[in-house]
Parts: sequence; C-alpha cells; structure tokens
Amino acid sequence: MTYTEPHKHKETGVRRAVVLLSGGVDSTTTLAVAMADGYDCYALTFNYHQRHKREIEAARRVAEQMGVKRHLIINFDMREIGGSALTDKTIEIPKDHHGEGIPATYVPARNTIFLSFALAWAEVLYAGDIFIGANAVDFSGYPDCRPEYLKAFEEMANLATKASVEGGLRFRIRAPLLYLTKAEIIKKGIELGVDYSLTWSCYDPTPEGLPCQKCDSCLFRQKGFREAGVEDPLLSGRRP
Amino acid sequence: MTYTEPHKHKETGVRRAVVLLSGGVDSTTTLAVAMADGYDCYALTFNYHQRHKREIEAARRVAEQMGVKRHLIINFDMREIGGSALTDKTIEIPKDHHGEGIPATYVPARNTIFLSFALAWAEVLYAGDIFIGANAVDFSGYPDCRPEYLKAFEEMANLATKASVEGGLRFRIRAPLLYLTKAEIIKKGIELGVDYSLTWSCYDPTPEGLPCQKCDSCLFRQKGFREAGVEDPLLSGRRP
Repeated sequence: MTYTEPHKHKETGVRRAVVLLSGGVDSTTTLAVAMADGYDCYALTFNYHQRHKREIEAARRVAEQMGVKRHLIINFDMREIGGSALTDKTIEIPKDHHGEGIPATYVPARNTIFLSFALAWAEVLYAGDIFIGANAVDFSGYPDCRPEYLKAFEEMANLATKASVEGGLRFRIRAPLLYLTKAEIIKKGIELGVDYSLTWSCYDPTPEGLPCQKCDSCLFRQKGFREAGVEDPLLSGRRP
Repeated sequence: MTYTEPHKHKETGVRRAVVLLSGGVDSTTTLAVAMADGYDCYALTFNYHQRHKREIEAARRVAEQMGVKRHLIINFDMREIGGSALTDKTIEIPKDHHGEGIPATYVPARNTIFLSFALAWAEVLYAGDIFIGANAVDFSGYPDCRPEYLKAFEEMANLATKASVEGGLRFRIRAPLLYLTKAEIIKKGIELGVDYSLTWSCYDPTPEGLPCQKCDSCLFRQKGFREAGVEDPLLSGRRP
C-alpha cells in the first residue's frame, strides 16, 4: 500500500499534519495554510534554550487562537552543543546586516533536529504531512532552509520509520512558503486571517521585551510588512 | 575544499568523531573501534525517558573507563510522543521473541533524532565522522538500523549544515558493526579490550535491577556471548 496523495488517517479518514511552529511570521502563516488545506493540525514547538524564548509564548498564543488539535512543546538544551549566537550568549547577534555568508544566528542542525521530532510524532499520529515554514527567498541563507535539503530529508524520512517501511505511509515535507517573498507570505497570511500581532520574530529582545529592530529577523519582518503595504500590528501597538 | 578521508580538525590536525553511546554491547564496541582507529571520541548519550534508564549509567561508566574526550548526555521526553514499549508503560515489552515484524520496542524516529543531535555536535566540533552501533544482522528489524537508511541520512547531513555547505566538511555516518553477527561484535570488542561488565542491554530490568533475560535485547546478547564462546561478565557476577 503506497500513498501519494495527502494521507488520510486509516481509522478516522481525517487528514492530519504535524506543523513546526516557532511563533514567527513564517511558521504561523504555514500553519494557516495547512489549516486552510483542511488538515487537522498538530503543532510542534521547541524550547531549546534559545535566547529569544519569548517566541515560545507567541507559539502558544498562535496555536491556541488558531485551534490546533494539540500543541506539543519539546524541551532540550542546545546550549551544551552551542555554536550559535542564539544558544551561546558569548556570541553576539549580528545587527544591521553586517557580516558575510551564513550568519552567526545559524543553529547547528536545528531544522534536522526539529524535523526529526516532527517525523516521530507524525509516525505516531499516522500523519503523512509535515509542514515547515522554510523560505529560500527573504532568508538568512541557512542551509537547512533550502529545497535540496528538504528533499533529502524527505527521502531519508521515508526509509526511517516503521510506518513508512511496514505501514506504507509516505511522508512529505511540505514547505508552502519556500519560494515566496516575505511580503507575499504576509499577504497570504492576512488573506487567511492570520493575526500577526500574536507572532514574534526578534532574536534579541530589549530588556523591556520589545523587538530590537536591528537583527536579521527584525529586518526581514520590517521589509515584508513594508513591501506588503501593511502596518506590523506587533509594532503599531494594536495589542499589548 | 572537499574531504573524502576521515576529517582532521583544521586547527589541531586531530581526527575527531562523535560516537552515539547507549551503553549497550553494540555502541560500546563501536566506541572501541573508533578509539582504535585513532579518533578523539566525543560520546553522546540520550536520556529520552526510556524505561531502561539504567543504560545511561552504563554509558557513563563506559565513557569514563574508555577515556572519551567528552561525554554529553542530552535530555528530552519522548513519552509525550509515545508509540513505543520503551517510552509508554502501557505497552508491554515483548518477551521470548513472540510477535511478528518490527517489534513494539521500536521507538519512532529514534535514530534520526539521535543522529541529528550528533550532526549538530559534529558540526560544532568540526568532526566529519559520526559513529553509530547500527547492526543489520542480529537485530530486531528496526528500519533505522538498515544500510539504506544510514546512507540517506548521510546524504541529507551533507546538505544540512554550515560546515558542510560553507566549510567543505564532509560528514560520514560510520556503522562499523553493520554486517557483523552479535558473536563477531563481541569477539571484536574483546580483542579491543572492551569490558562488557560495564555495559547494559536489557529493556525491562527486574525490580532488583537485573536483566530480565527474556526481552529481545537480552536474547540477542545471550546468543552473542553463547556463539562467541564467552561468558557474559554482566551475568557471571564478575562485577557487582
């Protein structure tokens, strides 16, 4: 038995998806796309002791407001592995787009770790579709956001599990935002009713808990809202 | 810059490897092989809230006795994902080889999660080689121990990281025991001076903390020692 269409749960007939949800613009929009596609969504968030833990609160609010079936937060400590400005406080967060190549905010193998947990949960849920907000246009050049990486992960995933090998479940890594600009992502989200005031992007919040407005993640967000011709509700104070 | 030979650290010239170490016969022997190959070994163990947490203590003793450079234990809770007799106490551990196909002790995407963390650490250490004690002969048929799976993971890994994409580091997933019988593994380990009294295999220890002697892991261990013509030092009471 092989599935090529979005997988329906064998007992209930419902289409289930695991959605990686960081609480930022891209993952929140991805969740909206998956919901609009008719999936029962299972949101997965990670507390990896990232500097900007505030995003976890955002993910919690988004998951609740958007009505996911379940929201699971997995905890582990990436500070012990280090190698990133997001997990090692001795490495500075780059500001104002200085520096070349893949920036210091890259976290070693982060998406591989995230997708691996998503794969485990998808197997238990018998959900063939794993959604990730990866983007290869307005992005920092992280290698694990590129299409060739996602394709390779998908191939590996289909050899990795009991559900795929014995149960005929075909996993698909879905990245519906992969080729969109940040402005296109935001327009799509607004069309789908996303409340971006719930989201969080900044890597390096101020002591007062506000976005720094200078890190890559803030700059991409600003550019997106500007080019979409929309005010960012997080900044306009529409919501505390 | 591309590396096809075992990678040497660019600053120190030393060959580093990350070795997955569960504390069982296979991973301990794999560590011995990597040490004998001249690697500086960085052992990685997981506390995923497995039923047989005792193996973590075994890993600790093995890592210390064998002189690894560092031993890192990563904690996360796979009980929230479930789907395995090793992480869900309501699922029974199969005994005496009953049942067909991939057994209930299979843990969803476990090796994918383990290897993903190993990849992250290997990137930070600039270590090209990741050792895993996977075996495809005397094994339970877990899909993520098969050569085709390991190959696919390796391909994905080489697209996943900054070190591979920008730094020219070539990752290799090394499974030196892949085609050996359990008896051959034990003979090799003894040749390399492994003290198997330090290791732990049982999935379902008795209340007194002894191996159950009936789970798959115990049975494979018994078969291995029997066919190798060696007494299991864990059972012979050579050590408390």
